[in-house]
Amino acid sequence: MTTISESIRNLARDAKETARTLSTLSSEIKNRALLRMADRLVEESAALLAENKKDLGGAESKGLSGAMLDRLRLTERSIADMAQGLREVAALPDPVGVVTSMWKRPNGLQVGRMRIPLGVIGIIYESRPNVTADAASLCLKSGNCVILRGGSEAIHSNLAIASILKESLRKEGIPESAVQIVSTTDRAAVEELLTLEDYIDLIIPRGGEELIRTVVRLSRIPVIKHYKGVCHVFVDADAEIQVAVDICVNAKAQRPGVCNAMETMLVHKDIAPRFLPAAAEKLLAAGVTLRGCEKTRAILPGIEKATEDDWYEEYLDLILAVRVVDGLEQAMEHIAAYGSMHTEAIVTSDYGNARRFVNEVNSSTVMVNASTRFSDGFELGLGAEIGISTTKLHAFGPMGVEELTTTKFFIFGDGQLRS
Amino acid sequence: MTTISESIRNLARDAKETARTLSTLSSEIKNRALLRMADRLVEESAALLAENKKDLGGAESKGLSGAMLDRLRLTERSIADMAQGLREVAALPDPVGVVTSMWKRPNGLQVGRMRIPLGVIGIIYESRPNVTADAASLCLKSGNCVILRGGSEAIHSNLAIASILKESLRKEGIPESAVQIVSTTDRAAVEELLTLEDYIDLIIPRGGEELIRTVVRLSRIPVIKHYKGVCHVFVDADAEIQVAVDICVNAKAQRPGVCNAMETMLVHKDIAPRFLPAAAEKLLAAGVTLRGCEKTRAILPGIEKATEDDWYEEYLDLILAVRVVDGLEQAMEHIAAYGSMHTEAIVTSDYGNARRFVNEVNSSTVMVNASTRFSDGFELGLGAEIGISTTKLHAFGPMGVEELTTTKFFIFGDGQLRS
Repeated sequence: MTTISESIRNLARDAKETARTLSTLSSEIKNRALLRMADRLVEESAALLAENKKDLGGAESKGLSGAMLDRLRLTERSIADMAQGLREVAALPDPVGVVTSMWKRPNGLQVGRMRIPLGVIGIIYESRPNVTADAASLCLKSGNCVILRGGSEAIHSNLAIASILKESLRKEGIPESAVQIVSTTDRAAVEELLTLEDYIDLIIPRGGEELIRTVVRLSRIPVIKHYKGVCHVFVDADAEIQVAVDICVNAKAQRPGVCNAMETMLVHKDIAPRFLPAAAEKLLAAGVTLRGCEKTRAILPGIEKATEDDWYEEYLDLILAVRVVDGLEQAMEHIAAYGSMHTEAIVTSDYGNARRFVNEVNSSTVMVNASTRFSDGFELGLGAEIGISTTKLHAFGPMGVEELTTTKFFIFGDGQLRS
Repeated sequence: MTTISESIRNLARDAKETARTLSTLSSEIKNRALLRMADRLVEESAALLAENKKDLGGAESKGLSGAMLDRLRLTERSIADMAQGLREVAALPDPVGVVTSMWKRPNGLQVGRMRIPLGVIGIIYESRPNVTADAASLCLKSGNCVILRGGSEAIHSNLAIASILKESLRKEGIPESAVQIVSTTDRAAVEELLTLEDYIDLIIPRGGEELIRTVVRLSRIPVIKHYKGVCHVFVDADAEIQVAVDICVNAKAQRPGVCNAMETMLVHKDIAPRFLPAAAEKLLAAGVTLRGCEKTRAILPGIEKATEDDWYEEYLDLILAVRVVDGLEQAMEHIAAYGSMHTEAIVTSDYGNARRFVNEVNSSTVMVNASTRFSDGFELGLGAEIGISTTKLHAFGPMGVEELTTTKFFIFGDGQLRS
């Protein structure tokens, strides 16, 4: 009998062997497979919903929360959206083989850098079955093999989706081992996977902070991490009040449960007496609870008091920490001290302050006069998003298909020798 | 009393705090500091040689090999070379703040990507004291703080060099904590350093495979790894014999002890009867020992027999493994199976085979009709080299100052909201 450890090793070894083939697939073949996957998912909706029902039943009997069940649930609509996602990935430009730059050396050598796939990518994720199709499509598009390891609560849905993806690969003559799914829900499988540095080039965990910290702790393979999104909007002294209010309400309340929502609002002391009452009216109307510093509460006496802990908090909820600051310098110091290097915005009419904020704040996304909610692969124009990195190695911020590649050097010579 | 662990933490915390200042330094100030460092190293040659003498004395009494002593030794000449290296780094373009691309979204948002420093970089190295100046200069140029940890055998030389670097920083108004040197030779210091993921963004080990494997095993911080350089030259059927011989001799014998030297020569069976005798004559004359497969020995009966182990070997010496292959396909399979993804070259006159080799071999540097010895940051035109990465995350191949940066997204808006 094969042990879990052996079967995971075999699966990863197969992926590694397939990686060489996958790196040379033409864009045409990859796109045909993606479009076929999209069609087949829709055609097989009934079967997918039946498998999903098993997962939902199991989750209910385990007493999972309504929000968890929502994330787990497939519908005709969510399957159609998944298929549409695959079609959009097919329509993206192929990053593989792109020459990012080329130059000539004094000895006549022509030197270039060319994008190539990373090789084998492991995705470890929770609840949402649509990640199975999303992640597999982005890896295929970028010429990488993928090993998928979803949550045990979604195992039937994930296996059903993966089996349709594999069937489509086969029909287009692409090795099925390009998309691997771990079929056991045993935790030992993940632990084994994270030790296979000879076969797997990158691990991307997608889920809560707990999952990510566990993966980082156990992995011998490089991990692209996304910890918290403690995003700030700084309302500068000469911001236009209406623009600032609209941006802050959008950044906080348009979708509070996601990582690019604003968590702390920083307000220049000179604009605070005019801006805060206007902003509070709209924020409170949107159901937001405000927690302010002393100076904020001097202007908005009715609100809760913010403590030191609030500045670190990623609420992911309709709660907002508010601090009045002396100016740009203090705002940037606050962001450096308490922020998570995710996304920060300044609302200003001042050219110099806009320029300083953009140049000096080294979060993964910095903005002038726009909502932090735009910090997202699709909204930035990357086409789709495999995740967001809040650490700086390899990728920083929203990651599209380009971030699933690296570059090699290539050289055209005419017999040059080194002396 | 401060423990080693505390003093390392303090040093790393200082570096982290300085990183924000360092990221906004103008190119002018950084370059002035680099030029001052160069001048001061030369002026203080006598003092440096005196400190180096202490290290040499200690190393001799410990019975270190002649090669090790050579690497450790400073001379008037090597100090002048170190200074020249600093001047060359000063002359490089500043990578920080460079906008690598910028585009407009349908809603009018302008989105760009800008290079920013990584933050704090730890360099762990052996013997050569010049790494102290080289590594510090590349980190300063790219706006990063650096923590240097050299070998215990070079501690006096390293401290003396670092003290000159720090003095020059101070004179230019740059915080001294931009260049940190670990002054204890206790191994516990390295172990502590490798756990400080909150303060240090990247670890680059420079030294033998043993050092690198230890760092990778202990580090919680991302490590850029350079394992082996098992480099190949494939001599194709219609290579020009003279060009192929010259390239192979240069790749093997011009400097055999370095990672971009050829270790295995693959020869197309159709050219082998003409090429091998011509190549063997020149290689043997250069002092190279040949180890061949059966087919090679049928043509060159006098040479040693290669075993399976030879295909994996990084000799770093005047030894060469030779294999006759059926063609391009088998050559690429050999490289994929035994290579280390460092550098590979094809010698050919065939357009299609050159194109396939460049597109399908995913080593960090692939070449047509040039010596593998060109796989080097300076030779490729990166200006200088902080190391070579043989894994694909973040950097692949020779790394220059650009590889010590990451990119952030920046957005210029006019009040855009997400709907």
